[in-house]
Amino acid sequence: MKAAIITIGDEILIGQITDTNSVWIARQLNDLGIVVGEMVSISDDPDHIRITLDRLIGRYKLLLMTGGLGPTKDDLTKQTLAAYFGGRLVMDDEILHDIEDFFKARGRKIIESNRMQAMIPDTCEAFPNHHGTAPGMWFEKDDTILISMPGVPYEMKGIMVDYTIPRLKELFKFPEVVHKVIMTQGVPESYLAEMIRNWESNLPACVKLAYLPRPGIVRLRLTVTGKCVKESKVILDKLINELSGIISVHIFGFDDEQLEKVLGRELRERKLGLAVAESCTGGNIAHLITSVPGSSDYFRGSMVAYHNEIKSDILDVQQSSLNEFGAVSQSVAEQMVMGVMKSFGAETGIATTGIAGPGGGTTEKPIGTTWISVAYGDNIYSEEFHFGGTRERIIEQASITALNLLRRLVIGTL
Amino acid sequence: MKAAIITIGDEILIGQITDTNSVWIARQLNDLGIVVGEMVSISDDPDHIRITLDRLIGRYKLLLMTGGLGPTKDDLTKQTLAAYFGGRLVMDDEILHDIEDFFKARGRKIIESNRMQAMIPDTCEAFPNHHGTAPGMWFEKDDTILISMPGVPYEMKGIMVDYTIPRLKELFKFPEVVHKVIMTQGVPESYLAEMIRNWESNLPACVKLAYLPRPGIVRLRLTVTGKCVKESKVILDKLINELSGIISVHIFGFDDEQLEKVLGRELRERKLGLAVAESCTGGNIAHLITSVPGSSDYFRGSMVAYHNEIKSDILDVQQSSLNEFGAVSQSVAEQMVMGVMKSFGAETGIATTGIAGPGGGTTEKPIGTTWISVAYGDNIYSEEFHFGGTRERIIEQASITALNLLRRLVIGTL
Repeated sequence: MKAAIITIGDEILIGQITDTNSVWIARQLNDLGIVVGEMVSISDDPDHIRITLDRLIGRYKLLLMTGGLGPTKDDLTKQTLAAYFGGRLVMDDEILHDIEDFFKARGRKIIESNRMQAMIPDTCEAFPNHHGTAPGMWFEKDDTILISMPGVPYEMKGIMVDYTIPRLKELFKFPEVVHKVIMTQGVPESYLAEMIRNWESNLPACVKLAYLPRPGIVRLRLTVTGKCVKESKVILDKLINELSGIISVHIFGFDDEQLEKVLGRELRERKLGLAVAESCTGGNIAHLITSVPGSSDYFRGSMVAYHNEIKSDILDVQQSSLNEFGAVSQSVAEQMVMGVMKSFGAETGIATTGIAGPGGGTTEKPIGTTWISVAYGDNIYSEEFHFGGTRERIIEQASITALNLLRRLVIGTL
Repeated sequence: MKAAIITIGDEILIGQITDTNSVWIARQLNDLGIVVGEMVSISDDPDHIRITLDRLIGRYKLLLMTGGLGPTKDDLTKQTLAAYFGGRLVMDDEILHDIEDFFKARGRKIIESNRMQAMIPDTCEAFPNHHGTAPGMWFEKDDTILISMPGVPYEMKGIMVDYTIPRLKELFKFPEVVHKVIMTQGVPESYLAEMIRNWESNLPACVKLAYLPRPGIVRLRLTVTGKCVKESKVILDKLINELSGIISVHIFGFDDEQLEKVLGRELRERKLGLAVAESCTGGNIAHLITSVPGSSDYFRGSMVAYHNEIKSDILDVQQSSLNEFGAVSQSVAEQMVMGVMKSFGAETGIATTGIAGPGGGTTEKPIGTTWISVAYGDNIYSEEFHFGGTRERIIEQASITALNLLRRLVIGTL
């Protein structure tokens, strides 16, 4: 089965917001074995919606659409769909009831534009929205199914998980595709490709490899299709085993598991606490760690020390080291990690100190120069890095690299 | 002039990466007055690329394409474009020289697949890539221009800024469109729409309003077109002046300026230092603040206190308060902000303590319950919030709300 994803909204086309709905929906469909043939973003304009539907209906069996359903005047999608699928808007009492409950539960006053969101085309089936007011709508035409959902990501996700996906599973038996993603850290894409070239050349015909880079990380995705699917477990186990023989220390996990989650699991299993002292990463490492539910089991806390006086006053970094070696130095990074572990009573620690730019670079220490220290008990490892790119990218790469160094120190592969 | 944006890559269609290139390109085009009619993501498949080009060439005058140009085997776009525009791949010596320099400057070894990136269709003009190895390519056919650029965002941005945009400006005189975005915090979209309904109804015909919500923030975009453009400054000044009369305290800035940047400016102007104590936001406030270049001028540092013992040991929160009121309480938030301001010697402070979920909620204090305290000298303001949505969304809303509360306290509108 092939699907297309349509996102609607002028705010996407003028570059005001990033469309994150398409990627999320694509992942869900992919897991079901539905191939996404294309994603398209168009304006909330009746003509453009009609032209796009004319082009895609019949060509794809499934169309998932988000956006254009807000309570304000500039949202025209519902009216357009009602006309396209030959229906008229009628009040749906159950949906109205849901919307009224939604406001009651939050102690908020309902207004007329909210109530109007219960007006639904009579040619569709409405799906309740438990996280907002615009319901989902399921239409069928010429053997194509179209599901319209609100553009607010967590409202759309709720409708997908509660209604759209279960309904699709009910209606169709999906062909099988098996994916396995190998997560690597610390080696750029082209180097990695060179390291595993022979292995890649010998992949079975029904297995495809894709390189998926993001800052600091390269994901290797193996896709098994066709007749191999039945034996995919055996095939993938063998391939991953071979790959581990070549790049084992660079592999930190599988299937899009985040590094902060993998590190957290290693710490939890060993009952170790973690404290972080951040200078150039400015809180991003703590933010990544605490984005994982349950991180309070091992995360003690973090200190962002943006000034030298804070480094010396609170983290006990010696003023003489700051003077002699500068804030971006091995000596300061190591004192920072020891200081924060002591303050927070943690068995493991991470410290970063570097120049994220765009200011502050020198010939000796250009922008991107970063010292990272990780420690596990008395065992300290420090390394100097030269990250490239923008401030944002340098912060991201330094954070990811630091998390992985601690992971490797804790499991004993550093 | 109308444009379409094409992003290429299986990793987008299977939901492995979010396409952030389209939004960035759209914003640049929009600033030039070029209307983006659609964005489409397709696979790195020669047939699909050809079909899409057939559909869009002639319909749009300008096509911007990213992706599919990597050094690995699964990138087929360059070959497809060479065939489509009737050329063959030849070695471009200048580009080869650039690529060799790129590796030399980074002290990295060049490999054959990197060198092959200098093979360019002889029917296009190549644009150097100063941040990577795949050059940009400018093609023309049937009065349509197609510019192919690499998919790595900062490489694409470099080519856009250095070559694509200047070349477009050289070739065309763009019609004028004027946008003004009003940034608001603290009022949900539907409430805001209700508050400004009368004002909205009286907008001139050549001015359009759009509501652009994101967690904690609603942006109001005014677009002036047609004959009004000449007087747009007068028209916009008048409209914003009227709007300020209705929702002034909720407006924190204009034109997508981030709250963390606005707060930073207010602090810098007043020569005030800032310290942050984070519990539920877990480092995200520090991360937002330090994402602004030059934030070291006012940001002293942050303490992420994820455990009660850290709150009492390092931030001097009284154990009796933790016992009596719990960690998520006004008393603890206020002691946290006072403690961190003292430790870091800062004149202003922010503290957050709350339940981000998915665990930890109770009937009395459900998930999303958050106390925020902000302080400026001896002046402390505290408020309890009930944020909705996922862990990520609660963290984001709490962070944004905290930044705005401190901004309002500092400028005297709280």
